[in-house]
Amino acid sequence: MGKKYVYFFGNGQAEGSARLKDLLGGKGAGLAEMTNAGLPVPPGFTITTEVCRIFYENEGRLPMEIEAEIQSALRRLEEVRGERLGDPERPLLVSVRSGAKFSMPGMMDTILNLGLNDVTVQALARRTQNPRFAYDCYRRFVQMFGNVVLGIEKRKFEEVLEAKKRARGVQHDTELTAEDLKELVREFKRLIAEETGRDFPEDPHEQLQQARDAVFRSWNNERAITYRQIHNIPHDLGTAVNVQAMVFGNMGETSGSGVGFTRNPATGEKELFGEFLPNAQGEDVVAGIRTPLPVQKLREILPDVYRQLEEIAERLERHYRDVQDFEFTVQEGQLFMLQTRSAKRTGLAAIRIACDMVDEGLVTPEESLRLIEAPTLNQLLHPTFDPVKRKEFRVIGRGLASSPGAAAGRIAFTARRAVEMRRQGERVVLVRMETSPDDIAGMQASEGFLTARGGATSHAAVVGRQMGKPAVVGCSALIIDEEAGTARLGDVLLREGDYISIDGTTGEIMLGDVPKVESEILRVLNGELEPEQSKIYQYFKRVMDTAREVKRLGVRANADTPGDARLARAFGAEGIGLARTEHMFFAPDRLPHMQAMILASTEVERREALARLLPMQREDFAAIFRVMDGYPVTIRLLDPPLHEFLPKREQLMVEIAILRAKGETEGVEEKERLLTRVEELHEFNPMLGLRGCRLGILYPEITEMQARAIFEAACQVAREGVRVLPEIMVPLVGIAREFEAQREIIDRVAREVMREAGIQIPYLVGTMIELPRAALTAGEIARSAEFFSFGTNDLTQTTFGFSRDDTVAVIEAYLSQGILETDPFLILDRAGVGELMKMGVERGRAVRPNLKTGICGEHGGEPNSVEFCHRIGLDYVSCSPYRVPIAILAAAQAAVTELAAVLE
Amino acid sequence: MGKKYVYFFGNGQAEGSARLKDLLGGKGAGLAEMTNAGLPVPPGFTITTEVCRIFYENEGRLPMEIEAEIQSALRRLEEVRGERLGDPERPLLVSVRSGAKFSMPGMMDTILNLGLNDVTVQALARRTQNPRFAYDCYRRFVQMFGNVVLGIEKRKFEEVLEAKKRARGVQHDTELTAEDLKELVREFKRLIAEETGRDFPEDPHEQLQQARDAVFRSWNNERAITYRQIHNIPHDLGTAVNVQAMVFGNMGETSGSGVGFTRNPATGEKELFGEFLPNAQGEDVVAGIRTPLPVQKLREILPDVYRQLEEIAERLERHYRDVQDFEFTVQEGQLFMLQTRSAKRTGLAAIRIACDMVDEGLVTPEESLRLIEAPTLNQLLHPTFDPVKRKEFRVIGRGLASSPGAAAGRIAFTARRAVEMRRQGERVVLVRMETSPDDIAGMQASEGFLTARGGATSHAAVVGRQMGKPAVVGCSALIIDEEAGTARLGDVLLREGDYISIDGTTGEIMLGDVPKVESEILRVLNGELEPEQSKIYQYFKRVMDTAREVKRLGVRANADTPGDARLARAFGAEGIGLARTEHMFFAPDRLPHMQAMILASTEVERREALARLLPMQREDFAAIFRVMDGYPVTIRLLDPPLHEFLPKREQLMVEIAILRAKGETEGVEEKERLLTRVEELHEFNPMLGLRGCRLGILYPEITEMQARAIFEAACQVAREGVRVLPEIMVPLVGIAREFEAQREIIDRVAREVMREAGIQIPYLVGTMIELPRAALTAGEIARSAEFFSFGTNDLTQTTFGFSRDDTVAVIEAYLSQGILETDPFLILDRAGVGELMKMGVERGRAVRPNLKTGICGEHGGEPNSVEFCHRIGLDYVSCSPYRVPIAILAAAQAAVTELAAVLE
Repeated sequence: MGKKYVYFFGNGQAEGSARLKDLLGGKGAGLAEMTNAGLPVPPGFTITTEVCRIFYENEGRLPMEIEAEIQSALRRLEEVRGERLGDPERPLLVSVRSGAKFSMPGMMDTILNLGLNDVTVQALARRTQNPRFAYDCYRRFVQMFGNVVLGIEKRKFEEVLEAKKRARGVQHDTELTAEDLKELVREFKRLIAEETGRDFPEDPHEQLQQARDAVFRSWNNERAITYRQIHNIPHDLGTAVNVQAMVFGNMGETSGSGVGFTRNPATGEKELFGEFLPNAQGEDVVAGIRTPLPVQKLREILPDVYRQLEEIAERLERHYRDVQDFEFTVQEGQLFMLQTRSAKRTGLAAIRIACDMVDEGLVTPEESLRLIEAPTLNQLLHPTFDPVKRKEFRVIGRGLASSPGAAAGRIAFTARRAVEMRRQGERVVLVRMETSPDDIAGMQASEGFLTARGGATSHAAVVGRQMGKPAVVGCSALIIDEEAGTARLGDVLLREGDYISIDGTTGEIMLGDVPKVESEILRVLNGELEPEQSKIYQYFKRVMDTAREVKRLGVRANADTPGDARLARAFGAEGIGLARTEHMFFAPDRLPHMQAMILASTEVERREALARLLPMQREDFAAIFRVMDGYPVTIRLLDPPLHEFLPKREQLMVEIAILRAKGETEGVEEKERLLTRVEELHEFNPMLGLRGCRLGILYPEITEMQARAIFEAACQVAREGVRVLPEIMVPLVGIAREFEAQREIIDRVAREVMREAGIQIPYLVGTMIELPRAALTAGEIARSAEFFSFGTNDLTQTTFGFSRDDTVAVIEAYLSQGILETDPFLILDRAGVGELMKMGVERGRAVRPNLKTGICGEHGGEPNSVEFCHRIGLDYVSCSPYRVPIAILAAAQAAVTELAAVLE
Repeated sequence: MGKKYVYFFGNGQAEGSARLKDLLGGKGAGLAEMTNAGLPVPPGFTITTEVCRIFYENEGRLPMEIEAEIQSALRRLEEVRGERLGDPERPLLVSVRSGAKFSMPGMMDTILNLGLNDVTVQALARRTQNPRFAYDCYRRFVQMFGNVVLGIEKRKFEEVLEAKKRARGVQHDTELTAEDLKELVREFKRLIAEETGRDFPEDPHEQLQQARDAVFRSWNNERAITYRQIHNIPHDLGTAVNVQAMVFGNMGETSGSGVGFTRNPATGEKELFGEFLPNAQGEDVVAGIRTPLPVQKLREILPDVYRQLEEIAERLERHYRDVQDFEFTVQEGQLFMLQTRSAKRTGLAAIRIACDMVDEGLVTPEESLRLIEAPTLNQLLHPTFDPVKRKEFRVIGRGLASSPGAAAGRIAFTARRAVEMRRQGERVVLVRMETSPDDIAGMQASEGFLTARGGATSHAAVVGRQMGKPAVVGCSALIIDEEAGTARLGDVLLREGDYISIDGTTGEIMLGDVPKVESEILRVLNGELEPEQSKIYQYFKRVMDTAREVKRLGVRANADTPGDARLARAFGAEGIGLARTEHMFFAPDRLPHMQAMILASTEVERREALARLLPMQREDFAAIFRVMDGYPVTIRLLDPPLHEFLPKREQLMVEIAILRAKGETEGVEEKERLLTRVEELHEFNPMLGLRGCRLGILYPEITEMQARAIFEAACQVAREGVRVLPEIMVPLVGIAREFEAQREIIDRVAREVMREAGIQIPYLVGTMIELPRAALTAGEIARSAEFFSFGTNDLTQTTFGFSRDDTVAVIEAYLSQGILETDPFLILDRAGVGELMKMGVERGRAVRPNLKTGICGEHGGEPNSVEFCHRIGLDYVSCSPYRVPIAILAAAQAAVTELAAVLE
C-alpha cells in the first residue's frame, strides 16, 4: 500500500486520531479524535503536513496521485453530505483551514463558505429560505478569498463596504439588505479583477485548489515564521489543510460561534470558561468587532446547548485527560464542535489543574506532570509587574528577554553609580552597552540590567539568571552616551535617575516605575509566609514532590555563594554542580590581591599574593560546604583569562595618550608599567587563549592554593560535624595529560592537608567537557577523571565556532532566515553539541563504567535540553537556582515520557 | 607462553630481529639483526622498551618475573663467554647501553667495563698481561658509574684526575702508570663515598642493576625530553637496555674504535666514510679529546680490518637496503660490530643515494622513496647560507623556525619602511612584533620576516611559507621599540638599516649579512640553468617522477596569485586547493573600495563599491585560470572578519584622544565616524565572529559579486581556449543550511552568467570543513556539497580551543612538560582533529559516495599529516607551493608503506 496523504472524518468515524498529530496537525488530529469520540463534528478531510512539504519541494505543485487522493476524499465528503461542490441544487460549502503540529493561533490562513458562486448562492438562498444570509455568506467568501488567496489588502474591501454603508445611510453590516450584499459581491469581484488582472474564480474546484495552496503558502508568511522563532517551532514541519463541510453560526439568533475552555486558563478554577457571539461565524469572535458574551450566558439563551457543552467539556477532559480549548458553532440550535486542543495556561493554572485532576482521578500524579509547561513555573518564582497597573505605562522598547522577572528603578549608567545610588536607598536599574565582571558590584546593587549588546548567554544574562535578577539584553535600539549620562531609546531621552521598568519575561522596557507583586512561593521559602497560608505554595509543593519522586536525573544548582546555595536547596537542588571560584576574586577586598598575583614578576611574589587570597577562599568554601551539608559541591578551579581582572587595554592606552598630550608626567610611568603587563596578557581571542586549566599548568601555584583552600575548608567543617563531599573540577581540558597534571597537584595537596588535619575527606576530581577534543578523547580522560560535567556554553561556542558575545546578529539573521531553527545557546543543539555529548558519555563510560556525568551549561535548566540529558543518560543537570524547579519538572517529564513510550 | 621481556643474541644467532625495533630499540634490533646476518658481534642481551614502561609504572621497581628473566639471560651470556660476572679468575665484563626506537644520539646513558672491582681487575690484568690497561678500564668504569649512575658531576672526577697528573708531572692520561691509576680508583671511590654517603658497589650484580635502572631513568632526563620534543618523538616509547660483553679498543696500537657510514651522508657519494681512533674506547671518539683519523687510514694501518669493513659495509647495505651508520671496535686486530642504523643524510645525499641504489639494483624505484626523509627536500629548494662563511657571524638569538630558507638584509620595523627601502634597492628583513594583513606589501618587499610573537601558524609563518620566504617567529627575547626605530635582542641593540640574517630552517638569528648559495633546482625551474647542467636537478626529477607514479593522493597547492600558481605547477601541483580571495583586497588599489564597501550604510552603497571591485576580481581569477589550464582551481569566498580591512580600534581611539587633548577639532569628526563603524565591527573573539560564510549570508551581495567574478572570468578564458575547472568553496560552514543558502546564490549567478555568455562551464560547489560541527553533521552538508576541504588550521583551533595567535606560550609549556607530544598546528592531531576528519569523510561519503575530499590547512604539506590523509582516504592534499614536492614524496611514501604492510 502506498503512502496515505488524505485522512477522512465524518459520521462518527475518522481515519486519523490524536496520535497522528505530526501528520494531521493539531486541528486535524482533534477533529478526527472528536469524531471518533462521537462528538458532533461536521464531516471533512485533512490533507497531511507531508503534502505541505511536497508542495514546497515541487515549487507549488502537487503530484497527480495526491491530487487524485484529494478528489476522492472530496467525493466521499459529497456522498456523506448528499451535496456536491458547485451543484446548482445542493451545493457543498466548505471551510479550508490550516493546522500545524503546534498551535500558531491566527498566524496562518482560513477560508470559509468556499463553494459559493453566482449559481450556488441562489441554491443556498432557496435552501435556507434566507437570501440575505446567503448573500452575506457570499460577500464574506469573496472578500476573504480576495484577501487571503489573492493577496489583496483587507483595507480595500473595507473601503468598498464602508462606501456601500454610507450610500445606504446605515451604520452596521447587518443593516444591509440582500440586494445591497449582492451588489457588494459584484463590486468586490470588480476590485479583484482590477487588482489581479484576472476574474474571481467561479468554479468551486478551482476555488478549492487555490485556497488549499494559499494555506500551504501561509506556512511561510512572515508572521508565521516570526511566531515559530519566538516559540521554537521547527520551520520544516509544515501545515496540514482541513477541508470541512460548513456549518453556519450566522443563521439568526439561535445560531452563533464561540470558543471555550474546560477550565479557567488563568486561575485553573474548574468552570466552563469562554465566549459566545450570537448570529456570527467564527472569525467574528476573533475579529472583536462585536463584544461576545461570556459562555455562561448560554445557560439562559440556549440552555440545551449549554448543557450539551458542559457534557462535552467533561467528555473532552476525560478523553484527553487535560484541559481543552475548543471552538464550536451553533447552527439553528444545533451544536457543532470545530476544534479542540490542549489549553495554554498560566503557571498558576497549570499547577492547580495538575493537582485538581489528580484529585478528580482524571490523571495519575505522574501523568499530571505532563499538564504543566515547565517554563511557566518561572511566573511563580519571580515578582511580576501588576498586570492591571502596567497598562498605564508606556512601552518604549524591547530587547531579548533573558532573565525572567520584573525590575523597576532609577537608571544608572555605570556600576559605580549603581552602588552609590543604592547606598542612598534607591532602587536601581543598571543600563550599560554590555556588562563585564568589573560590573559585578554594581549588578549586585541593582534590581535588574538592561544592555544594548549581547545575547541570551551574555554576561548580563548569565549573571541575571544566576542572581535571579531580571535582565533584558541586546536592545540594539538603545544608544548610550555614558559620558553625558544619557541614553536614547527610540524618541525617548533617558537620563541618569529616571525611572524605568524592565520585564525580563517579555523583554519589554517601560518608562516609569511600574508597581510589582511579589512571588508567593518565594515568600514562603523565605519564611515570610506560612506554607498553610498559601494555596499556590501547596500546589507547587505537591507538583515538585511528585516530580522529585518520578525523575531519574539528579538536579543540582550553579551557585557561587552561601546565599545562592541556600536558595538552591530551598528549591530542591541535590547539590551544587558548579561553584565558580573566580567570582570570588572580583570582590573589592580581594581584587587588589588578585591583581598583585597577576602583576607579580616572580613565582615568589605570586605565591605571596596567593597566600593572602588563601584564607579568603577557604572561608568562601567553608561557608558553602556548611549550607550544603550532606550534598556534593562541585568546585571549578580558576577559569577566566587573567586580563579580566585588570583594567582594559584601550582605556589605559587612551589615558596615557591624554596625559602625554597634556605634557603631564605624573602617573604615566605607573600606568605604562601596568599597560605593559596588560599588553602581555592581551589576546586576540581570549575565549581560546590562556584560561582554564592552562592557567593552572603554567602557574601550578594557583591550583595549589585553590586545592589547599578547598581541603582546608573541608577539614575545618568536617570537624564541625558537617558532611562534606567536594568534587573538584578542572576546567577547559582538551588533552588527557592536562587533567592528569592538575590532578596530581590536587591529590598531593589533598594528602598534605588531610595528613596535617588528621581527617580523611572523600572527594572526587573530574573535569568539564567543554571542548570538542575533550569529548572526542573522553576515553583517555576518563582513565583519571572521576566525573565529567558538560560545559555546554563553551562547547556550543567551539563546536559552532560562535563567540556568544559576537554572533548575536548572526544568530538573529540565521533564525529569521530559517538557517537555524533555535538559538543553540538557549536550546541544546542535538545534531552537533549533543552528538559530542553522547560520544563523550559513551567513550568515558567504556573506560570507567561508574563515571559520573552532568551538565553545568545554561542548558541545564532548559526543558528541551534537560530531556536530551535524560535521554543520553547523564546523572545530573545543574542550573541557576531559580531554574531548579523547572529542571526538576522537566526531568520528571522526560522520565514519564520515556515510560509512556516503553508502555506503548 | 608469557610475554618475553629479554632477547638474547650471540654466537651467530639472535632471538630478536630488525622487525622488533619497537621493543628492542634501534641498537638492540641492529645487534640482533647483525648477529643473525653472521657479522662479528659481541654476545649479549636486550631488555625491552616495555620493561622501561613497567619500570616507570612501578616507580622504579621491576616485578620478580622480569628480574628472573634478566638473570637467566645473564647466565646464558656467561655460558657463551665461558666467564662469570664477578668471577675472580674469568670475570665477565659488560657494557650497558640505552637504545630507543628512534635514535637520540648522546642523549641517554652508557656504562662500560661493568663487572670490575678490586678482585676482578686483577684477573683482567693477569689475563691481558697488561695491568696498566686493566686499571685504566677500572678507573674509567668507576668514573663513569659515579657520574652516570650515582649522579656526581663529571667535573669533580676531572679535578681529581687533573690533580693526579699535576702531582705526577705528566700531561696526558696515557702517561699515568698502573699504580697511578690504582690510586686514582681509590680516590674516585673516596669521592663517591663523600658525595653519596655510600660506598661504591663492589658487587658486580649490584652494579648491573644500578646501571640498568640509571639507563631507564635517563629516558626522562632533561636533555632527552628536549631532544624528543624537537624531533617529535613520543615521550611514552621508553628505551631498551643492551647488556653486551665488552670488547676493548684500548688494548694497544692494533686496537681502536670507530664510526662509519656506508656512503657519504653529506654528498651521497659511494665511499666508505667515517673516523677511527686507535687505542681507544668508543667514548673517546665521541668525546673529541684526541682527533680521530679518517677511516680510510685503516687501509694502511690495519689493511685486513679495512677490507673486512668494506665487505661488511656492502653486506649491511644489501641486508638493510639503505645506507648505514655503524660503530665498531677493533681489539688486537679483531673487528667487532657494535651498532648499525640507517644513516641520517642531507637532502642532496638522500636523493642521490635513492637514485644510485636503484641503479645498483639494491632497491626498486618505489622502495628508494623510503630512503628520503621528505622534509630534507626543503634544503634543496631554498637558498641557504654558505655553510663555511656563516661560521664567521655571531648568532644573537633564536626563534621558531617556521618557514625554511635563508634571508639576509637590512632591518625595517614597519611595512611602509620595508617598501621604501626596497625601492631604494635594499634587501630588507622585516622585523615586527607580529605581522598582519596590513603588512602584506611590506612582506612582499622583504627577504624574510622576524617576529617577536606568534607560532608556527601565525600570519608571518603562513605568509612566509606561502611566499616561499624565510620566517623566524615567536622570538620572545626580541623587544621592539617601533617609535624609536630600534630593537633589543639579548645584549645587542638593533637599529633600522642594520644587517641581520635569519635562518628559517634552524631559527637562528645572526648579526650581519651572511652570504648565501641559491637553490640549483629552483634555478632550473626558473629557466636560469639548463636541466642537463644540474646533476642535483636530475636526481630530484627522477625521485619526483617515481613519487608521482606511486602516490595515490592528489597534491595541489595553496596559491592566490598567478606567480604562485606558476611555481606550484613547476613543482608538480595538480591543481589549486585553496585560492584565498581576500588577499586580493589588501592591494593598495583595491583597499579603498573594500573599505567603502564595509563603511557603506545601505545595500545600494555596498553594491556600488562591490561593482568597482568586480572587474579587478575577475582579472585575478582569469589570470589564475590561464596558468592552471586543465587543472582544477578551488576558490574560497571571502573569509576574514571585515575589521581586518579597517584601521585598528585602539589606534583610532588614541588618535582621537590626542587630538581632543590638544584641543584640535579638525578631522576628529571624520575619525569618530570611522571609529563608530570600527566599534560596531569590533569583536571580542574575531576568530569566532562574523566571518566566513556568515558574511555571505548577512551580505549576500558579496557572494554574488564573487560568484559573478569567478564565472565571468571562467567564461572569458574558456573563450580563449583555456580548460577551466572552477571549484567554489564556501568557508566556515557549520550548519547545512548555511551552505545551501550560499550555494543557491552561486548556482543562480552561474546560470545568469553562462546564459549571458552562451557558454557552459562545469563547476563544483563545496565547503571547507573547519568547524567541529561541520564534521559532525557532514552527512547533512554532503547532501548539497560536492566537495569537502578540511581546513585543519581552524579545525585545530576550535577542536582544542586554542587560538593560534594566543597560545604559543601554552603550547611551548605543554611540549616541555610532555602534555603535548607535538605541536598540533604543525603535525595533525590524530586523536582529536583527525578523528573529526575521519568522521567527516565517512559521514559525507555515506550520503554522497563520490564526494571529493581534501585538506588545505598547513598540515597538507607535513609528511606525518600527509600519511594520515592518505590513510583516511582523502582525494588530495593542498599546501603552499614550496611544500608541494615534500607532499608528493610523503604521499608516495604513504602508498609504499601501505603496500608493504599488505604484502607482509
